[in-house]
Amino acid sequence: MPDQGRSAPVVVDTTHSPYARLRPVPLTAVTLTDTFWTPRRRTNREVTLPAQYQLCEETGRIDNFRRAAGNSNILFKGRFFNDSDLYKWLEAAAWTLATEHDPRLVELVDKAIAEIGPAQQPDGYLDTYFMFERATERWTNVDLHELYCAGHLFQAAVAHYRATGSSSLLDIATRLADHVCTMFGPEEQGKRVWADGHPEVEMGLVELYRTTGKRQYLDETEFFIDVRGHGLLGEPYERFGSDYHQDHKPFRELERMHGHAVRAVYLNAGAADLFAEKGEAAIRAALERMWTSMTTKQMYVSGGIGAHWEGEAFGRVYELPNERAYTETCAAIGSLMWAWRMLALDGDARYTDLMETALYNGALPGLSLDGQTYFYQNPLADDGMHRRESWFGTACCPPNIARLLASLPGYFYSTSDAGIWVHLYAEGTAQISLPDGQRVELVQQTRYPWDGDVTMTVNGEGTFSLFIRVPGWCETGVQVTVNGRPFTGSITPGTYVELQRTWKPGDSVQIHLPMPVRRLESHPYAIENRDRVALMRGPLLYCIEQADLAGVELRDLVLPAGAIFEATFRSEMLGGVVVLTGDAEVVPPDAGWDNRLYRTTGSAGEAATTRTVNLTAIPYYAWANREPGMMRVWLRTR
Amino acid sequence: MPDQGRSAPVVVDTTHSPYARLRPVPLTAVTLTDTFWTPRRRTNREVTLPAQYQLCEETGRIDNFRRAAGNSNILFKGRFFNDSDLYKWLEAAAWTLATEHDPRLVELVDKAIAEIGPAQQPDGYLDTYFMFERATERWTNVDLHELYCAGHLFQAAVAHYRATGSSSLLDIATRLADHVCTMFGPEEQGKRVWADGHPEVEMGLVELYRTTGKRQYLDETEFFIDVRGHGLLGEPYERFGSDYHQDHKPFRELERMHGHAVRAVYLNAGAADLFAEKGEAAIRAALERMWTSMTTKQMYVSGGIGAHWEGEAFGRVYELPNERAYTETCAAIGSLMWAWRMLALDGDARYTDLMETALYNGALPGLSLDGQTYFYQNPLADDGMHRRESWFGTACCPPNIARLLASLPGYFYSTSDAGIWVHLYAEGTAQISLPDGQRVELVQQTRYPWDGDVTMTVNGEGTFSLFIRVPGWCETGVQVTVNGRPFTGSITPGTYVELQRTWKPGDSVQIHLPMPVRRLESHPYAIENRDRVALMRGPLLYCIEQADLAGVELRDLVLPAGAIFEATFRSEMLGGVVVLTGDAEVVPPDAGWDNRLYRTTGSAGEAATTRTVNLTAIPYYAWANREPGMMRVWLRTR
Repeated sequence: MPDQGRSAPVVVDTTHSPYARLRPVPLTAVTLTDTFWTPRRRTNREVTLPAQYQLCEETGRIDNFRRAAGNSNILFKGRFFNDSDLYKWLEAAAWTLATEHDPRLVELVDKAIAEIGPAQQPDGYLDTYFMFERATERWTNVDLHELYCAGHLFQAAVAHYRATGSSSLLDIATRLADHVCTMFGPEEQGKRVWADGHPEVEMGLVELYRTTGKRQYLDETEFFIDVRGHGLLGEPYERFGSDYHQDHKPFRELERMHGHAVRAVYLNAGAADLFAEKGEAAIRAALERMWTSMTTKQMYVSGGIGAHWEGEAFGRVYELPNERAYTETCAAIGSLMWAWRMLALDGDARYTDLMETALYNGALPGLSLDGQTYFYQNPLADDGMHRRESWFGTACCPPNIARLLASLPGYFYSTSDAGIWVHLYAEGTAQISLPDGQRVELVQQTRYPWDGDVTMTVNGEGTFSLFIRVPGWCETGVQVTVNGRPFTGSITPGTYVELQRTWKPGDSVQIHLPMPVRRLESHPYAIENRDRVALMRGPLLYCIEQADLAGVELRDLVLPAGAIFEATFRSEMLGGVVVLTGDAEVVPPDAGWDNRLYRTTGSAGEAATTRTVNLTAIPYYAWANREPGMMRVWLRTR
Repeated sequence: MPDQGRSAPVVVDTTHSPYARLRPVPLTAVTLTDTFWTPRRRTNREVTLPAQYQLCEETGRIDNFRRAAGNSNILFKGRFFNDSDLYKWLEAAAWTLATEHDPRLVELVDKAIAEIGPAQQPDGYLDTYFMFERATERWTNVDLHELYCAGHLFQAAVAHYRATGSSSLLDIATRLADHVCTMFGPEEQGKRVWADGHPEVEMGLVELYRTTGKRQYLDETEFFIDVRGHGLLGEPYERFGSDYHQDHKPFRELERMHGHAVRAVYLNAGAADLFAEKGEAAIRAALERMWTSMTTKQMYVSGGIGAHWEGEAFGRVYELPNERAYTETCAAIGSLMWAWRMLALDGDARYTDLMETALYNGALPGLSLDGQTYFYQNPLADDGMHRRESWFGTACCPPNIARLLASLPGYFYSTSDAGIWVHLYAEGTAQISLPDGQRVELVQQTRYPWDGDVTMTVNGEGTFSLFIRVPGWCETGVQVTVNGRPFTGSITPGTYVELQRTWKPGDSVQIHLPMPVRRLESHPYAIENRDRVALMRGPLLYCIEQADLAGVELRDLVLPAGAIFEATFRSEMLGGVVVLTGDAEVVPPDAGWDNRLYRTTGSAGEAATTRTVNLTAIPYYAWANREPGMMRVWLRTR
């Protein structure tokens, strides 16, 4: 039975989920003191969140609530899903308040909630777009995001309740959830059969169930998943085909990732939540198939997903254009959210590997170093035209990255019956309660992600396992010692090493994760990456920017097979980054092109002069923070 | 001064255009008797056109006119630009009637015109979408295609008038054109400043000017070109950015092709028409820059254009994805229409080269061999999912290809002060009037495009030049003889050879255009085509289809550098085609991928077993006429 009192501030509460192996550790239990995330989280609180609130105000997103509360003199502004931005902002602010003291933010949160409450209708309905002249259009078009907005409200409300103990937003959320449950459900219950055009409500409803204990919210989630694949999202919603909405097949029959990428991963995250509670094998099997397809045929090396601009969608298998990658910031975040829920099910480190790469390389590039501008799309090559913006008409990404950063400490650890799981590395401390009630303090000392040495002090007493993640990227040379004594069991990259022992305060675990510069190649069916490599070091993907290679046409850059790279921390550069430097060749096209696009083979002209240049690669997350210019992740090898 | 009486059925009437070097030859003067185009044109008349009329009827496109004529019980069906489909069908039917006797088609044409007339408003306005409840929305949104539909009406009316001598449709067209000219124009004339969201009206207005002699239609064209690039097509029309509408800069400042591909080439075709009449150098210079950019950086080897599904648009330079090519059939046709107008200006054979490739390889694939189904997009690689359809909600392509086929004979020849220009090759005869009034009969005997030998009998008397096109693809071995005596002047591929002499009836010109199998390679910045070749023979692009290579993964196919191809005519196959056959290797990915998408270099597994297969390549225009399967134009060379 879920808690019905105040939950601890956990991001996804699988504490009592019968089909989940891992249980969350509250945000409040984890204190990051590192130099990578801590400054970013501070910027998130001090710069990003206040600016986003202000933008919600300036763009009418809050006015829309005032209007819905009865002020018909205010015009509705923006798009029909704009409520969700304020909800997502609220969620971000709530997670922030869980760990930070910030009276100014408390005030903004309370103000926002005070605007939302009066906009709710007596029957519980809440969506500011469908008011006044549009009131008759409520629940007439499954693709107008009423449930999507509701889902974000539910997530925000749960976060606010868990973070502050206040039910002011939760009460609004449950009234809306009750309205939804009353309206929609199986025909035999006399309810309307209805689908969610943009998945999101599933995650929200499950968390609401976990928070309130109301089983109907879980059943409603199952209904919304069962109802898909039967044409409810067909015409007139089929602008991009029914797979755009993941409606081309029933959920349990899905084989690979299809359609709008954010919708797809949000849906799968909700389905994973449902599985954690109900344990239906067909759901798990469908998730497994989609996971395999995504990670082996449909995902960028950055962890980004969504190859098509058209429909913001997954492409065909192996279709991964770099410059034209859509790779929405929200999709990488959604992918991480899905992975986190999968990880909770069985503790398989492949999910953590994806989380880590989606975090550093898929989501983080979406935010500028100063926390003030955002990418919607995160291409892996660019000509200098793609730059971050301070806001969007469709502003889903900005508050999404804010809530990710705000909730980040909640993703570092889990517990299980057997002990403590260490998923992510960063300097800091955690106070973890084991299921039997014993408390353990973990202290991480590390320069991760710049360095792969982690010293973990385990201040606890008793017998339990410490599950240490060995990242999949760490292919050789991993060493784990406990109090100086090498761990002698087998260490497999992409798994957790289980250190089972009777711990004493001050026990020290040393984890050595070598970070050589790795060259990654793509499956040859990923056509653009043929004869190319991407550079990674540790969890970080690297790229080349024109700013470091003035006068070089990046399309002509060739990385010799034997090129040696040096990794150097440059504190003055891009907020402090490890750069990779090494020699590369500049090999321009032969002279025989003569301003032609096509020519008969054998008519090559004289080879152009090649030259050697010293190349500097920077972490991909930091690109487009200097003057505009070309950028490339995949570098030619010939 | 343009003719004011009945014009001859010429497609684009530059007869009196002061800045055009070439004059058109009427459709009626050219009789094709070949085995390539003639059966296709017969199918167009017998199958395609009746079916399209029927579809216009079934889908409400004709009912929309009945409704607009006053029958408010009929609901408007389809999209706001659907009138244009009937107009384009009428244009196709009119050009057909210029050369063919077809009472059934005459009846359909008269029926269609009889439906259109009553739909016109007393003030000349005609657009069935903006009737009744939408009447107040007339001319309120530049992107709702009122001028686009008008332009297609103008083209249809001119075709109908030139083909039949009847002014029944022309009278409707001029009333609408007068309405447009009254409404829109420079502010100082007290008119509304208005732009055309989807260019098309320009070509129509210029031809209307050429037909009626009314100068205001030409001035109106100039106005619609001048007005662009000043933000009239900005918000709220900026779904894809102002370059989507070619509105990001004034026309005269455009540097490369941008935005929606069909709009872009239609606009340029209209601007070329304007230049032919007014001769403004800045217009010509902009057209030249865009032509160069398109043909050297933005065009598929098929002549197709439009790299992006999003916005149906040109991509960045060198952005030419194959499987995801948008390459709308209409865009290839529009490209040909633009090229034809450029060719008329100065007789430069580079325009004819493009026309020929766009015709055979860009537009023709848009139509099935049976003339009953159509491609909207023409990708250069496919997994077997992309198949032709019998109609579309947005049905621009079907009647566009019908009007191209119907008007095709009009593109074969031109005249100039100096003589006769031979642009295209196909068996048939032409009766050509020179400017001085003398008549010349040209007889082409050839199996083109399957064979490059053309015997041309010139039955004429007097001194004039015969300009013989030497295709750019014909790089070596071209021979031209006159009455058996070799032409001794220089012969440069991609130019016209001028045979100036005093001709006598029965003079015979032999043109020998060798057709070896050519391998084309792409500029290395066209990233997907690196280390790949496309096969061409004569004007035809080839492709590989799964139907000819059962059990072979086409992505593994490698064409060795020394592969020898045999060209064989197979009369029983695909309506009769020359196929190319030769040996290729199947080289699967090494075994080390182990269901991974990315791996560290150096971890390659054992090489998979390679094998030799006999490959059959078919003309690209004929693809997707057999069972679904993979298709590739660009083949690996390693």
